[in-house]
Amino acid sequence: MKQDILNRKLRVGIVGGGQGSFIGAVHRVAAELDSQAEVVAGAMSSDPQRAQASADAWYLPRSYASFEEMARAEAARPDGIDLVMVTTPNHLHARVARAFLEQGIHVVCDKPMTLTLDEARELVALVEKSGLVFALTHNYTGYPAVRQARAMVHQGELGEIRKVLVEYIQDWLMEPLEESGNKQAEWRTDPARSGLAGCVGDIGTHAENLLSFITGLRISSLCADLSTFIEGRKLDDDANMLLRLENGGKGILTCSQIAAGEENNLTIRVYGSKAGLEWHQMEPNTLLFKPYGQPQQILRRGLGYMGAEAQAASRTPAGHPEGFYEAFANIYKLAIADIRRVESGQPAQGGYPTVHDGLRGMEFITKAVESSQQGATWVDL
Amino acid sequence: MKQDILNRKLRVGIVGGGQGSFIGAVHRVAAELDSQAEVVAGAMSSDPQRAQASADAWYLPRSYASFEEMARAEAARPDGIDLVMVTTPNHLHARVARAFLEQGIHVVCDKPMTLTLDEARELVALVEKSGLVFALTHNYTGYPAVRQARAMVHQGELGEIRKVLVEYIQDWLMEPLEESGNKQAEWRTDPARSGLAGCVGDIGTHAENLLSFITGLRISSLCADLSTFIEGRKLDDDANMLLRLENGGKGILTCSQIAAGEENNLTIRVYGSKAGLEWHQMEPNTLLFKPYGQPQQILRRGLGYMGAEAQAASRTPAGHPEGFYEAFANIYKLAIADIRRVESGQPAQGGYPTVHDGLRGMEFITKAVESSQQGATWVDL
Amino acid sequence: MKQDILNRKLRVGIVGGGQGSFIGAVHRVAAELDSQAEVVAGAMSSDPQRAQASADAWYLPRSYASFEEMARAEAARPDGIDLVMVTTPNHLHARVARAFLEQGIHVVCDKPMTLTLDEARELVALVEKSGLVFALTHNYTGYPAVRQARAMVHQGELGEIRKVLVEYIQDWLMEPLEESGNKQAEWRTDPARSGLAGCVGDIGTHAENLLSFITGLRISSLCADLSTFIEGRKLDDDANMLLRLENGGKGILTCSQIAAGEENNLTIRVYGSKAGLEWHQMEPNTLLFKPYGQPQQILRRGLGYMGAEAQAASRTPAGHPEGFYEAFANIYKLAIADIRRVESGQPAQGGYPTVHDGLRGMEFITKAVESSQQGATWVDL
Amino acid sequence: MKQDILNRKLRVGIVGGGQGSFIGAVHRVAAELDSQAEVVAGAMSSDPQRAQASADAWYLPRSYASFEEMARAEAARPDGIDLVMVTTPNHLHARVARAFLEQGIHVVCDKPMTLTLDEARELVALVEKSGLVFALTHNYTGYPAVRQARAMVHQGELGEIRKVLVEYIQDWLMEPLEESGNKQAEWRTDPARSGLAGCVGDIGTHAENLLSFITGLRISSLCADLSTFIEGRKLDDDANMLLRLENGGKGILTCSQIAAGEENNLTIRVYGSKAGLEWHQMEPNTLLFKPYGQPQQILRRGLGYMGAEAQAASRTPAGHPEGFYEAFANIYKLAIADIRRVESGQPAQGGYPTVHDGLRGMEFITKAVESSQQGATWVDL
Repeated sequence: MKQDILNRKLRVGIVGGGQGSFIGAVHRVAAELDSQAEVVAGAMSSDPQRAQASADAWYLPRSYASFEEMARAEAARPDGIDLVMVTTPNHLHARVARAFLEQGIHVVCDKPMTLTLDEARELVALVEKSGLVFALTHNYTGYPAVRQARAMVHQGELGEIRKVLVEYIQDWLMEPLEESGNKQAEWRTDPARSGLAGCVGDIGTHAENLLSFITGLRISSLCADLSTFIEGRKLDDDANMLLRLENGGKGILTCSQIAAGEENNLTIRVYGSKAGLEWHQMEPNTLLFKPYGQPQQILRRGLGYMGAEAQAASRTPAGHPEGFYEAFANIYKLAIADIRRVESGQPAQGGYPTVHDGLRGMEFITKAVESSQQGATWVDL
Repeated sequence: MKQDILNRKLRVGIVGGGQGSFIGAVHRVAAELDSQAEVVAGAMSSDPQRAQASADAWYLPRSYASFEEMARAEAARPDGIDLVMVTTPNHLHARVARAFLEQGIHVVCDKPMTLTLDEARELVALVEKSGLVFALTHNYTGYPAVRQARAMVHQGELGEIRKVLVEYIQDWLMEPLEESGNKQAEWRTDPARSGLAGCVGDIGTHAENLLSFITGLRISSLCADLSTFIEGRKLDDDANMLLRLENGGKGILTCSQIAAGEENNLTIRVYGSKAGLEWHQMEPNTLLFKPYGQPQQILRRGLGYMGAEAQAASRTPAGHPEGFYEAFANIYKLAIADIRRVESGQPAQGGYPTVHDGLRGMEFITKAVESSQQGATWVDL
Repeated sequence: MKQDILNRKLRVGIVGGGQGSFIGAVHRVAAELDSQAEVVAGAMSSDPQRAQASADAWYLPRSYASFEEMARAEAARPDGIDLVMVTTPNHLHARVARAFLEQGIHVVCDKPMTLTLDEARELVALVEKSGLVFALTHNYTGYPAVRQARAMVHQGELGEIRKVLVEYIQDWLMEPLEESGNKQAEWRTDPARSGLAGCVGDIGTHAENLLSFITGLRISSLCADLSTFIEGRKLDDDANMLLRLENGGKGILTCSQIAAGEENNLTIRVYGSKAGLEWHQMEPNTLLFKPYGQPQQILRRGLGYMGAEAQAASRTPAGHPEGFYEAFANIYKLAIADIRRVESGQPAQGGYPTVHDGLRGMEFITKAVESSQQGATWVDL
Repeated sequence: MKQDILNRKLRVGIVGGGQGSFIGAVHRVAAELDSQAEVVAGAMSSDPQRAQASADAWYLPRSYASFEEMARAEAARPDGIDLVMVTTPNHLHARVARAFLEQGIHVVCDKPMTLTLDEARELVALVEKSGLVFALTHNYTGYPAVRQARAMVHQGELGEIRKVLVEYIQDWLMEPLEESGNKQAEWRTDPARSGLAGCVGDIGTHAENLLSFITGLRISSLCADLSTFIEGRKLDDDANMLLRLENGGKGILTCSQIAAGEENNLTIRVYGSKAGLEWHQMEPNTLLFKPYGQPQQILRRGLGYMGAEAQAASRTPAGHPEGFYEAFANIYKLAIADIRRVESGQPAQGGYPTVHDGLRGMEFITKAVESSQQGATWVDL
């Protein structure tokens, strides 16, 4: 317990996120957006010079050459970090998380949670034992409209869920960028750093998580057809899946990184016995509600009729677009609030994706690959 | 050969389409839209009074109590019909088509083509032997934007096709309408009149046909998960399918009649190695072209940059919306032009869905049902 | 009174609409769409050969060299036309209408109604004296969604109307097409055939009519700034206007034929003390309803919650797009129904734009030009 | 000159923005988003307790009871603020700005710049004399798509500008909120705190500024019709204006706070002799480009074909929506860069709205009110 935690900003460290990274800066902005936290330390690259230069660019007071050193040193300081952000490639997630958890430091970790399913199981045990906050940045669940969607499903406004269509399609790997020095492409297409799956791990898991978050339903079995369209690529860059949900509902999940002309198109449609819902990440302030036999309604972030969950995740009046950063920041907002609670002896309240969601994501990846390798046959989760 | 066929409107008969029907009036409008044909005779219902009342409402000169009688009588008249429109429930398609083909009368038939795959095969043989025009109203291929899409794929503007996402989702069978006297719902959910499949036969075939029409590719195998969500319904009202295409491309086809809040949402997206395409039936005048690395383009029916196929299918300047009727009429326009050709000794030129497309549609239905009955396993077409 | 008028299709004649015309074919399709009328005679061009060729292309039984001859001859035939469609350039509208009205033949006339305000006043008197049906094809009022909008305003769902924004913008006259042989451009930019105004007369009147139709309010004064952007053009090709409505509401009307990239963008937005409405001609099946403090609703043509006026103007189920032709046909549908009534001794019921709307349109044009010529000052209507 | 300014975050103070404020938090987020500045001091309310509580909520090290005291105290500290954010109601802008400028502290000020035109002129002189950075938060110019639009106009891709349609419509003052204790509504409808105009000052100036920013053109004269629809309100809540631009182009500007169902709808359309452009603030990542005779193009923030100005204002890959905060932060990003330059002896480079834009905005407000008071007649700017 930290006596002063309610009277100051949280102190945050970052592992990974060095120059050239995309997601590191996102974590920083998200953590700091609400003036509840400040990044003060980093082990931003395995290359010491790049680590220092990256830390300098953010005016970080403390830069470390390795995350292990950072974990030890920060734990030893009276003004050490409360929270670490894990923004490395996947193969390091588990090791980094463990290093900080063992020093009593809370963790926000990027997704997918680990490299392997075994690592995921171990991490669950470690987090549970530690009593620390562990949040996984399935950031799309941070959008107010997504929270509204979940609340509406939960309250029964859709009736029994019958059909879910979820897609996450991009085109940024349409060319073999991994062969021409693109660092993002290199590690994401490398089994040693990315894991069993490429596209399915990178974005398919977001789709799976979003489906579960909104519907409250688990996928009970799936039939997955993974493809690699770019010659020489070592992991999948496209996948189509049939889903069966635990309640008898059916679904489709498709993800792709070779869908020409698509940017970051994460879309979900949910159909129940009373109404449907539709949400597009690329225009995230809008949620389409489709009650059977009545006019479709355009629900908009920030307006008074939105429910409490959506309002709590909203910062500006309607019509002032909130986007990717703000949604990401909502994960941090909830995690930070829980860290304040835990450190002042209160129970955590959650609301953000947890280590259990991360485990389910790793099961999803593992089973999807298994299904596809067996010729796209049905596999239970 | 009919000597005068170039100097007059074609004379058209209709079977089915009596009062309460939706599609009968669509065929009439479509046939007559371009002033190239006029409906003059009908066997519009098996109920003689309803048949007569229906014919009167359209001011038809000749009404018959049965299609068999109509076929004989019209063939015997010097001013008999040139063409019959088959707009009955599915189980009669083959019998009606045969009756008129055997009298030398050209046929435009609604889809799916027949009740069974065997009937479809017999009809192919009959049409081929007859030398008559047989057009199947997969009317969505009549949209100018769809024809533009096909031309662009054919010309290589998309490169090699990698991924196709096609969906046709509605909500009109969300309730058990077949139990409350809705005639449309009754026959479409009745295996004796609709065939092996419900939703898959009624609209899934449109999706399959559209995919083939635009991409020029056949589905080589599929894995289909059909569902019946409404208790007591005898046929499927929802289906999700994984597709593999003959060129190695992958796809998804989903169709539903229980998707709350959806009207008549037929959407196709095609992704190739160079570009993507997107088209929505409910806003049919627009085709979205997505060249990789360049801005998406909004191609609009009626503008000068559209190709010859699209222009030929277009009647009004850009911005004057053309819709369902006009697309349907394009099937008739092409079929009528071919009837004029055939009757004046010229070779037919096609461009409309044929008896072969109809056969493929019946194979699709049959295999989808087979796949689903085997637990949603892969089946070759 | 015509004894048989209830038992047959109406017989229709056309003046103008010869080959190369756009609007002639639209009138034909619209008149015939519902199987309630058939075009049987035409004086389709002042060039006799072109007149005959145009009539032949439509298989018209009777072609005339002049509209005067047609009016006399048809009136003398026992099977003469019931109705004439006036589809010539503006300067002939009044003369053609008069010729047929004087022979007891009903008239559907294109807009703007006449060349001059004086002609319009005379035509009002003539129509009133005749007791015949006279419909003006302000065809955009035929859209079901527009009828729904009018009904909603009328029923008070918007409260008191405060603000109206109406625009009709195109780009088809961005280049001096009138100098390169484009017949449509030639007469529309020629004061002798088009009248006082170019863009304001051609499309500004549609905007004015739509505003009045939906809101039920008249423009009480306006301040108009007309422009001619294309050098050498004799009439305006763009206009911006401030409006004051009879109830104290305010408005803007803008029209243009030089707005690069715009097709046929007629859009109206109406804001009242309780709610707003928005409609776009280019996606006409949708009406956006914006109740204050509640979610916007997407009202869609063909669904069960639409009001009686909209349903009566709708032919296909929701999601089967209806467009320009169908809306145009709704004007004819109403006019034909009235002709049947009048000819069987029943009172006319209206519902379509009348000679009085036409007079108001001519006042609008005249006052807009007057305002602009005075330096864009306020002028009362 | 500050020796260390390149090696640390800038220190920022805030005046106004206390609890209950909307715009204060926006300034804080915007200033801090890029890790280039940190808010460390505030005079956040004229109520000392509220000032302290507001500062505590943000963990500010220093809270002051008055802005005068803050200006003096901060200027005297070795670690005093470099920059002050002026986020009070309009009537204080000039006084606050003056207080800090006179202490050598840079200013970012909310809009409209001052209460009166005279104050604006004095502020211009003061800023020019000071050599300090003064940025005005016409934040909508910070959107990447807006910067792309400006660059495209500047590069001649639209040709000569002929027509501009700009609107900024909301509904948040549809009810007399100022009578029921809403602080935002109270001061914005109070001439003593808001100035000559209500809606025109609050959002009309944004529209005017956006028009000038994108087109590079000044309004040479205007004809404005201001309305107050809510009984008892002291300032306008709606306005319609005709515009004439310095190059002969024409335009319309409409703004409203009583447009039922509208959130924060700032939309601009620009039409030139070669192409048009369209941008909607509520979906800000998209810019529609409309080249005459070619397909419309959907230009999207973050993609490689965007110009340097847009790229510099963009932080995340395409498809990761950036919104209101990020655009606002772009004004700060540019101002902060200039402060670093000025304080290290380099010339300022601008790129953000300046005191001169603020003066023009005040002229616009003043002239619009004058025009309307004269009966909506033309007034030169």
